[in-house]
Amino acid sequence: MTKEEKRFQEKIKSIQDTMFVIGGKWKIPIILSVYSGNKRFNEISNSIPKITNRVLSKELKHLEENLLITRNVIEDYPVRIEYAVTDYGLGLEEIAKPLESWGKKHKKKIIGK
Amino acid sequence: MTKEEKRFQEKIKSIQDTMFVIGGKWKIPIILSVYSGNKRFNEISNSIPKITNRVLSKELKHLEENLLITRNVIEDYPVRIEYAVTDYGLGLEEIAKPLESWGKKHKKKIIGK
Repeated sequence: MTKEEKRFQEKIKSIQDTMFVIGGKWKIPIILSVYSGNKRFNEISNSIPKITNRVLSKELKHLEENLLITRNVIEDYPVRIEYAVTDYGLGLEEIAKPLESWGKKHKKKIIGK
Repeated sequence: MTKEEKRFQEKIKSIQDTMFVIGGKWKIPIILSVYSGNKRFNEISNSIPKITNRVLSKELKHLEENLLITRNVIEDYPVRIEYAVTDYGLGLEEIAKPLESWGKKHKKKIIGK
């Protein structure tokens, strides 16, 4: 394998790693929802059209395992669960912005084609 | 729905649109492969570890439908099929770069956790 091919495969591996962690329809929207102040499960669920509770639970667990959000038990009566974006999760801003702007441009392109 | 909620839902819709078009494990790697000079099906296939021909065919069709690559029939003996990234497809650079750099950082973070 040439140096160039090795470099190329490292590049696509990094991109595939990112897609594994934050890819799909729901992960970044969930992080953005928590980031915009929706701390409780139902608040997050209500803010994202068409997400089911089963999917939201699964994705929250995945995001927690990947250190992007924290699940906090608030000692109250009754006990409350609140989610928060980690400092590390805030770093996703550098991805969310270009994804958003590209999506807008693509919509115009595809509608205008 | 408040203005803020509407703005938020537009934002996540744009991100979901982008993920629909370029999400998953293979689409950006395929575009990068074609962009780096792999024009023929087998060249692209050989450059991306673990991709199957069935998946590559499906993804190439999807990328063509979304105006990101072109499929060109070269009148030769025998006829050849060559792929190329469209100018529009080149615009994905603004997404591929942050995805690559985030993936590198995440690997260090997860290994170091």
